[in-house]
Amino acid sequence: MSILTTRDRILQTSLAMFNTHGLAAVSTQKIATEMGISSGNLHYHFKTKQAIVERLFSRFAQRLEELDAAYADIGAIDDLWLSLHLRFEAISEYQFIYRDMPYLSAEYPVLGRRSQDLTATNLLAAQALCEGLVAAGVMKASDEQARILALQLVFTTSCWLSFERLVPGREPQKSADPGLAAFYTLTLFSPYVSSDAHTYLDYLRSKYLR
Amino acid sequence: MSILTTRDRILQTSLAMFNTHGLAAVSTQKIATEMGISSGNLHYHFKTKQAIVERLFSRFAQRLEELDAAYADIGAIDDLWLSLHLRFEAISEYQFIYRDMPYLSAEYPVLGRRSQDLTATNLLAAQALCEGLVAAGVMKASDEQARILALQLVFTTSCWLSFERLVPGREPQKSADPGLAAFYTLTLFSPYVSSDAHTYLDYLRSKYLR
Repeated sequence: MSILTTRDRILQTSLAMFNTHGLAAVSTQKIATEMGISSGNLHYHFKTKQAIVERLFSRFAQRLEELDAAYADIGAIDDLWLSLHLRFEAISEYQFIYRDMPYLSAEYPVLGRRSQDLTATNLLAAQALCEGLVAAGVMKASDEQARILALQLVFTTSCWLSFERLVPGREPQKSADPGLAAFYTLTLFSPYVSSDAHTYLDYLRSKYLR
Repeated sequence: MSILTTRDRILQTSLAMFNTHGLAAVSTQKIATEMGISSGNLHYHFKTKQAIVERLFSRFAQRLEELDAAYADIGAIDDLWLSLHLRFEAISEYQFIYRDMPYLSAEYPVLGRRSQDLTATNLLAAQALCEGLVAAGVMKASDEQARILALQLVFTTSCWLSFERLVPGREPQKSADPGLAAFYTLTLFSPYVSSDAHTYLDYLRSKYLR
């Protein structure tokens, strides 16, 4: 087995265990046991649990930043829906990050700061997106409305999965529906979008609302 | 010292410690040590940590339900701002509850279910509020828009303080500004409110937006 493969398996196993059991409850010892490798072997690849968490955080941040960069190609509401869908998939795949943020930022202050930097990057990208949608005539909004919409967009994508656990009738272990989450996020835009875009929102509504 | 007083002091100390150190990190032993009482004395008042958490949760839920009940008296946007202000104060005072929800609901499933029931109650109240504001002519919205607005209202009040920790420039220990949080929540209503109500939103904007 190559070094790369073991390293990747450690990251995959850690991610799954952090998501299922919570970041606080999973030690490097437990990860090694789960993988059937020695602590020494794991230690050879990652000196500390923090090093594993940092690597996973970097991958997560990269996913979101790629989605931020792709905002430039969004020229209609259906593109936006797809983009939000992919974002919720990424946040769900790395769900421990936003879910366990109080523990993560207290335990690893460097990652707390990187999370804030990521939010700042996301906010700027969301602002450019909203301004772009106004410029393209997809929606009508003042500069201030576009800024507030960008803030609502980042807030909703960051926190929606945490809120879903508070809503009755949800199985705690059931994975979230990224399509529904994307539809819900789009409803923030509905007061501002043009009538063309409303046709697509109506289609999504028929798909997701009872 | 009366039984009531020690009992209340235990609850106050526990609340402060849960908020500061996180629910997971605080044991009944640590609470007793902090108060300078014996574990036996604490145990006399609360058999388990869960009993303390349940009592604090009941107080929190009662605060929110009282605010839900007071929605019936809201006939204008400034009443709504005050009501949201008070709600964010309550959520901030019991901040460990929504912040540490993943741990809380895993450790005490009965409280996970009570949190979901509380969200359901809040959603129904928010829906009645939005319908009331439409009926009073404070805003214009279809039934579906009012339902979505109610969902956005409950989502925002439940999760905003968690999001604030993700925003750069925030001191992690600094307490949130309930007035700013209330203003932000009101911006969800702004596409729907009448021009009279916009005067008050403009006043809040001048106070809270740079």
